[in-house]
Amino acid sequence: MERVPVLKIGDFLLVSIQVDMEDQIALQLQEDLSARIVETGVHGVIIDITALDIVDSFVGRMLSTIAAISKVLDAETVVVGMRPAVAITLVELGLSLHGIRTALNVERGMELLARAREEEDLLGVEDDDEDAQDGAAVTS
Amino acid sequence: MERVPVLKIGDFLLVSIQVDMEDQIALQLQEDLSARIVETGVHGVIIDITALDIVDSFVGRMLSTIAAISKVLDAETVVVGMRPAVAITLVELGLSLHGIRTALNVERGMELLARAREEEDLLGVEDDDEDAQDGAAVTS
Repeated sequence: MERVPVLKIGDFLLVSIQVDMEDQIALQLQEDLSARIVETGVHGVIIDITALDIVDSFVGRMLSTIAAISKVLDAETVVVGMRPAVAITLVELGLSLHGIRTALNVERGMELLARAREEEDLLGVEDDDEDAQDGAAVTS
Repeated sequence: MERVPVLKIGDFLLVSIQVDMEDQIALQLQEDLSARIVETGVHGVIIDITALDIVDSFVGRMLSTIAAISKVLDAETVVVGMRPAVAITLVELGLSLHGIRTALNVERGMELLARAREEEDLLGVEDDDEDAQDGAAVTS
């Protein structure tokens, strides 16, 4: 069965969606991703959708679900690489990517996650994890 | 047409291959990747093949070609995420990934590229110009 790979890079996980998101693949991705978040203890997930020509309501819902699951597991989700045409269609369809942050590309997504982490640390959010204060160490 | 995204992360480009590599897609990837290397001036390319169930002679040749093109443009190529079954098949088929370095996962690939770069710097290879074609300085 086809599977979308989940890659660990520094303090975040990267998912590049390139195949059509059928039910089974989407469910498998949710499972794989949440397992990897728990296993690695990362605080950020970047989902790249450069390859997607269209984001319909199914894909939109899937992205929101992934963001919600990640959130419960203490990881922020950023969707990157959205094409202009996809953004236009999203708005025309009246779809909102609920609970999802977006950034232009992977690097800006990484910056956004690092900043979000710093702010959270500043606010004194409790974080038992051993790698609590290295949120900014990702970018160079 | 389907296209394999080329993502820039720090000082390297990441390509995650998930779709069947037909002629057109492979050619397009070669073009996109070489254009991005020139545009960004990176010195490393990581190709993730976690999603591939099989690497046949066509894919093997494509990877070698990409590595050779990158080399001429002064970028090292590392193939990561190869499944055990793929490695076994490769050897059984007698295919050698000519000119290609491999690493277990993206992070180890990044380390390998960083180390290779350091060694090259230590050897005193000139690197003032990002377009400098000093590909002849092969690291050990």
